[in-house]
Amino acid sequence: MNRTLIDVDGATQALRQFAHERDWQQFHSPKNLAMALSGEVGELTEIFQWMTEADSHAAASAPSTAQAVRDELADVALYLIRLADVLGVDLNAAITDKLAANAARYPVEAARGVSTKYDRLPRS
Amino acid sequence: MNRTLIDVDGATQALRQFAHERDWQQFHSPKNLAMALSGEVGELTEIFQWMTEADSHAAASAPSTAQAVRDELADVALYLIRLADVLGVDLNAAITDKLAANAARYPVEAARGVSTKYDRLPRS
Amino acid sequence: MNRTLIDVDGATQALRQFAHERDWQQFHSPKNLAMALSGEVGELTEIFQWMTEADSHAAASAPSTAQAVRDELADVALYLIRLADVLGVDLNAAITDKLAANAARYPVEAARGVSTKYDRLPRS
Amino acid sequence: MNRTLIDVDGATQALRQFAHERDWQQFHSPKNLAMALSGEVGELTEIFQWMTEADSHAAASAPSTAQAVRDELADVALYLIRLADVLGVDLNAAITDKLAANAARYPVEAARGVSTKYDRLPRS
Repeated sequence: MNRTLIDVDGATQALRQFAHERDWQQFHSPKNLAMALSGEVGELTEIFQWMTEADSHAAASAPSTAQAVRDELADVALYLIRLADVLGVDLNAAITDKLAANAARYPVEAARGVSTKYDRLPRS
Repeated sequence: MNRTLIDVDGATQALRQFAHERDWQQFHSPKNLAMALSGEVGELTEIFQWMTEADSHAAASAPSTAQAVRDELADVALYLIRLADVLGVDLNAAITDKLAANAARYPVEAARGVSTKYDRLPRS
Repeated sequence: MNRTLIDVDGATQALRQFAHERDWQQFHSPKNLAMALSGEVGELTEIFQWMTEADSHAAASAPSTAQAVRDELADVALYLIRLADVLGVDLNAAITDKLAANAARYPVEAARGVSTKYDRLPRS
Repeated sequence: MNRTLIDVDGATQALRQFAHERDWQQFHSPKNLAMALSGEVGELTEIFQWMTEADSHAAASAPSTAQAVRDELADVALYLIRLADVLGVDLNAAITDKLAANAARYPVEAARGVSTKYDRLPRS
């Protein structure tokens, strides 16, 4: 599969410049960025914690949560992109490989309609 | 700023097809996907938890962690993209707005070299 | 309220000895332990991510998840206790104060049957 | 080992009463509580994300973070205790078993001074 799955070049450049202008590279070790990513995912989780699954489908349009959902998704995306950049990981190559691995782990017939983890799926 | 910061169209389509073929849309409520994202970030965090900050810079090239780092970054990216799609959030628009908000919150002069959160930065 | 809410003395001592015997104090900075705690909570989250709320009530008795639930709850408890010890925080005093603060934030009448965060509750 | 490692009876009772008075049992499915726990750990993580390991040792005494550290540790403890209660898991038994399992996984001689995960420790 040679198709581009994700392109983060624009954001990567913008985040490099943002950090450079503020002399923040010193704080942006992968360890610290992984923690920051984790903190933002925690904030995203809090939005959904008391919602039913059904209600969660409307979280991005409901007035009381729409902006927060958008903000937290953006924060997660930004720290993820910055972390991949600092680590030197090509996100497009990484997810291309992962999707191929997932397709092998979860064959359509065995995985249909079940949420079981791949190591517990029935073997053909 | 009209530049594209992130383009996830390819991955979004691939993930839709992946879920559709396996009849997994039923599991992919935003609430559940937020949990799955959180679980993957937990796995990413575990890679870095006992590393020094200095060592963490080499995590994507050190033989004992390189593959795991790549895999977990990919998993985080995939669940993030799938979650944004199910919620109907345009990630590029969301991070464009967030970067602009961050630039206003962290003026270059006040924020240089300090990691203080914006509501505690010195006001000019 | 002078009642003991939590007593972690036994576990605190056992964890100190465990770390001391293995010369692991060097790894147990609060920063690292917070990451380890976060990683374990991620593993706990993964158990529940595809379950319905209704099914989640049986997670500690269902054969496929009972042991994992118990193990992950224990891991979270152990890292929490170790982290509080290394930081010098008295967990019993901390949760006693927090419960009192929560009671003030969520008055019975205003909070009954609503999951709204305290800063959005109707004021009497 | 018959010693009590942790005793959460007081907090368990207090949290039951707190939820009952507010009719919050309806929100307290294990799935939701696992998310709430995850959110609080995210807030705890944010306190430490830009700190060096060395500075993190003073987080509970430094004026700018002392109260937040205490509050977040308490929140994590409270949701953990509530989650264990709703699931019917005896935290003391669970951590007693886990500590014994950890002692077997990390023999003193093999584990001394190394943070390697047990499945990668040198076998004697």
